[in-house]
Amino acid sequence: MTLLDGKKISNDIKDEIAAIVQKMKDQGEKVPHLAAVLVGEDGASLTYVGSKVRACERIGFESTLIKLPHTTTEVELLNKIDELNQDDEIDGFIVQLPLPPQINEQKVLMAVDPSKDVDGFHPENFGKMALDMSTFIPATPFGILELLERYKVETKGKHTVVIGRSHIVGRPMSILMSRKGWPGNSTVTLTHSSTKDIANITRQADIIISALGVPEFVKADMVKEGVVIIDVGITRVPDASRERGYVLKGDVDFDNVSKKASFITPVPGGVGPMTIAMLLKNTLLARELRRKR
Amino acid sequence: MTLLDGKKISNDIKDEIAAIVQKMKDQGEKVPHLAAVLVGEDGASLTYVGSKVRACERIGFESTLIKLPHTTTEVELLNKIDELNQDDEIDGFIVQLPLPPQINEQKVLMAVDPSKDVDGFHPENFGKMALDMSTFIPATPFGILELLERYKVETKGKHTVVIGRSHIVGRPMSILMSRKGWPGNSTVTLTHSSTKDIANITRQADIIISALGVPEFVKADMVKEGVVIIDVGITRVPDASRERGYVLKGDVDFDNVSKKASFITPVPGGVGPMTIAMLLKNTLLARELRRKR
Repeated sequence: MTLLDGKKISNDIKDEIAAIVQKMKDQGEKVPHLAAVLVGEDGASLTYVGSKVRACERIGFESTLIKLPHTTTEVELLNKIDELNQDDEIDGFIVQLPLPPQINEQKVLMAVDPSKDVDGFHPENFGKMALDMSTFIPATPFGILELLERYKVETKGKHTVVIGRSHIVGRPMSILMSRKGWPGNSTVTLTHSSTKDIANITRQADIIISALGVPEFVKADMVKEGVVIIDVGITRVPDASRERGYVLKGDVDFDNVSKKASFITPVPGGVGPMTIAMLLKNTLLARELRRKR
Repeated sequence: MTLLDGKKISNDIKDEIAAIVQKMKDQGEKVPHLAAVLVGEDGASLTYVGSKVRACERIGFESTLIKLPHTTTEVELLNKIDELNQDDEIDGFIVQLPLPPQINEQKVLMAVDPSKDVDGFHPENFGKMALDMSTFIPATPFGILELLERYKVETKGKHTVVIGRSHIVGRPMSILMSRKGWPGNSTVTLTHSSTKDIANITRQADIIISALGVPEFVKADMVKEGVVIIDVGITRVPDASRERGYVLKGDVDFDNVSKKASFITPVPGGVGPMTIAMLLKNTLLARELRRKR
């Protein structure tokens, strides 16, 4: 069994990007500049945005954090987005979700210039991905592809079962794994809350990508020998024996499933750390595309 | 076994739209106006565009056919598209494919204003579809949904197997059948040229949607009793006994598979006739969206 070590790989990627940025600096070129918009004071959102900004700084990107009060109106936010769209200094930007209830998320995502949409959430970018055109791939799916690639996991002709049809993970993974090329070319089954007898389906899977958010949903008797496991779930489960009072659990019963798996991601330290690395990669791509304009 | 009669249903839809258009006229409102751009003199394309324009006329739409010579440059075509984008008289338009080799198809599809893209081929519309937003659904997949709906075929929790991953049929059908709502909520497996042991997969299917273009690929021993069959394939197979020298064959061995099926589309007369009806429906939708602006 091989552990798909997202922590290590994400550090490798950051080092690679840092080297490219250093080269840009040495040649007197503009370095990539990521802006992040945070509306309100949600604790988890603050943490996420904070780590994105710090990651930028560590690898030599410029970064701008725009904090807006939780009372911000939709029009105010749309004006800010328009400003960022127009600002030639900014290569890419993200709007941290969730947004306060007075703001329509869909409207906001639609307002981002697709060429600066490094989260890959704009329908135009999502559609390009589904139509096999080059574009920004959302960070988590992009990170999963990168893990499969770096560990040379064969995907062609394999049966990939995706659990969960979210816009952020399940749906894009089902598309990406069935595209031509590698990683891809899998026969893909997308399962979700209306799926019947899911164990019968997962038992046929060569690769399982689970993004359900139900701790230890995938048990050893639901998988076959040699399966590849990508576990995107990450849930806090109360645990009095821990100082912080909880333990992080994936969608997969790691202790038992790992005995049958050929490759498996740990939780934490698997898919999670890849997400920020791929956001940085998308920002670098955005800079390169703007330079070529 | 129930035949999914696309010819009948498409006529019903056209009658329904004609009634709506008549009402628009009676109220002195502008009726929907579809434009079609044809570059070159390809015989099949001329036929397709011709039937689209005639269908418009029959149901009371306005229509404009723009014929450009096969020597048209990319810039000339893009200028024409820009004109149609700006023209307030035109509610929706299509650019008939294929285009001559000097013109980049992707660039052309990207140039169409998404709000007039009644073919649903623009990445923004495709992405909206994949993200469960309301938009123009490409005509063939839209027609398949309509057939399932009008014949009240249950899809929730069923296992739908899609054969072929084309941008026009296979990929969008795999997305649409797994969306929430009805028709949808299926567990969907997307199969393609890299799929191994496809018969083992199709034998598990409650619903098979085949868009492969290989005559009689799906045999009776590849399906289970009670299966629902949607056959999108349509291929000319030489047949000396016919006056015209060929016979039209679907992807499915109709004579034998129909004995096991609960519902099945004939070829011709199944999915094919639905396509133009749904293009008209999209054009009506485009008009309604413009009126509300």
